[in-house]
Amino acid sequence: MGQERRAIITISRQFASGGRTIGKKLAERLGIPFYDRDLITLAAKKSGFAEEIIESADSKSTHSLLYSLSMGMYNNVGAFDGPNSLPLNDRIFLVQHNVIREIAQQGSCVIVGRCANYVLREDPDVINIFIHSDLDSRIRRAVDEYGTPQEKARGTILKNDKRRAAYFEYYTGARWGRMENYDLAIHSDRIGLDNAAALVESFAHMRADG
Amino acid sequence: MGQERRAIITISRQFASGGRTIGKKLAERLGIPFYDRDLITLAAKKSGFAEEIIESADSKSTHSLLYSLSMGMYNNVGAFDGPNSLPLNDRIFLVQHNVIREIAQQGSCVIVGRCANYVLREDPDVINIFIHSDLDSRIRRAVDEYGTPQEKARGTILKNDKRRAAYFEYYTGARWGRMENYDLAIHSDRIGLDNAAALVESFAHMRADG
Repeated sequence: MGQERRAIITISRQFASGGRTIGKKLAERLGIPFYDRDLITLAAKKSGFAEEIIESADSKSTHSLLYSLSMGMYNNVGAFDGPNSLPLNDRIFLVQHNVIREIAQQGSCVIVGRCANYVLREDPDVINIFIHSDLDSRIRRAVDEYGTPQEKARGTILKNDKRRAAYFEYYTGARWGRMENYDLAIHSDRIGLDNAAALVESFAHMRADG
Repeated sequence: MGQERRAIITISRQFASGGRTIGKKLAERLGIPFYDRDLITLAAKKSGFAEEIIESADSKSTHSLLYSLSMGMYNNVGAFDGPNSLPLNDRIFLVQHNVIREIAQQGSCVIVGRCANYVLREDPDVINIFIHSDLDSRIRRAVDEYGTPQEKARGTILKNDKRRAAYFEYYTGARWGRMENYDLAIHSDRIGLDNAAALVESFAHMRADG
């Protein structure tokens, strides 16, 4: 990395394309922290401002609920079920949003998912990566690594991609997976996950020196 | 490069994104031939089989003309004007198609544009690259390097992108600029043209070793 400049690397990815693994390998190579959904959620829970934000977000939740109902997105975007599902998710998104900004301010890091590329869109030190791969290899990865039953793998992958796209579009108003929104998009099958991590590392160095 | 394996690198690009220059630099770095539209057209003119193909394509030209008229693409796809415009372009496309296959069979090379990624889609040694960049920097490049008048640059760029998309979609039936169709997509502004060429070179080596 350049002496002063941070490298905040966000990774968006198709389901089971190896994007999360690439992000982890990349963080190890660069010796910088790695954050995925679980770690961001944990950070949000720990953060002092979480409660405050959840309270201040309350005034917006009714609109969000109505909006999401009208858009038919009620079951698309979240880890929680029940009648209060989406407003709670909206509040969680806002907390995560702030946690991501806090994380980025602390210095170089790799962040996988959570619309981080959108949250940090004004930050000049952000590098946005997209990882995609062939459906067949994603099916293999889902079966071998996530234990998805073979006969369900295809459906699970397509459903998860749709969920990611819906999540991103709901919270950002932008389209997920459009090339223009990323600095580098890699077909992970072509070179493998280790090489993909090395390639992003090269890109980050080029960017820092540029 | 690997000992036996060719690297046929196709470069698709937004207008004035620097893709052609990156292709040229890349070919120099790898010490392999570089082909763009002019060179492919020249090769097609020189090639012995050009006339034969033009004749055999005659039977298809009526359908293509009707099709293109019905699609309103008459003025979108070509270097020739007049009533026989599109059938002639179709014939030229077929000749170029064969020239691209010939070129690829001869060994490693860089090919810019001409739907080469589609023409060579069955070839396992092909690496498909897409280069894009911000509209502002493309305007600068069009003005500085192509001499496009400042006030016309934006319009020229958007028109040329549309033309490329129409050309690609007319001849391939596939969508131009979709991330899934490329092995690597680079935002050229972020690292500059020299670095982009170096990054593609790394990718090609990783692919050859994989």
